[in-house]
Amino acid sequence: MRQLLIAAHGSRRESSNDELKVLVSKVSLELGMAFDGVQVAFLELASPSIESVLNDFFNADTKEVVVLPYFLSAGNHVVMDIPQEVEKVLCHWPDKKITVLPHIGAFDAMVSVIVEASQH
Amino acid sequence: MRQLLIAAHGSRRESSNDELKVLVSKVSLELGMAFDGVQVAFLELASPSIESVLNDFFNADTKEVVVLPYFLSAGNHVVMDIPQEVEKVLCHWPDKKITVLPHIGAFDAMVSVIVEASQH
Repeated sequence: MRQLLIAAHGSRRESSNDELKVLVSKVSLELGMAFDGVQVAFLELASPSIESVLNDFFNADTKEVVVLPYFLSAGNHVVMDIPQEVEKVLCHWPDKKITVLPHIGAFDAMVSVIVEASQH
Repeated sequence: MRQLLIAAHGSRRESSNDELKVLVSKVSLELGMAFDGVQVAFLELASPSIESVLNDFFNADTKEVVVLPYFLSAGNHVVMDIPQEVEKVLCHWPDKKITVLPHIGAFDAMVSVIVEASQH
């Protein structure tokens, strides 16, 4: 079993966290066979936390999780905080695999999203 | 004259702010005739600030600025802070026009960027 985890910042504004949950349900419809499922988790200010979702995945027999940091630039959250969360969980699950992708803002497809948005 | 302003959060990590400047130069190449130019500005932790770039645009005879909040979800920065910055500047430039777009995360094209990234 292989799961995709979208690791977002989290907001004090509940509607902002809900917005990400809606996005994830849209992603789920498009994701195809590469993953058994997709879920969102938050680094701070909102739940579920990254740690708890990873633990839930592994308790449910997931072998591998791909983590997509849902951040636009490589600030401290991407460079330090998310890798730290991942390492913390892997200590308890030495037989599992977690791959951390580049943050979403690093993908060149963002250029076309900006250009498209600007014509809105 | 019409300019596009990408309003980002800003990071203590200088390389993170530089990453956005590189992105903006890529956007500039794709933007076509709809805008005379594109620039990035930061809400906090980095410069130039949104206020200073807007003032520079208007001092240089720009008539209209389109602001794209470069945020993935509608937290307080999108809902309160960016509109406040814009209103503050408009007080001094009552004849100018500023349009604030939805934040980048609100565009459905983000779904395909996530799906594409997850196959990385």
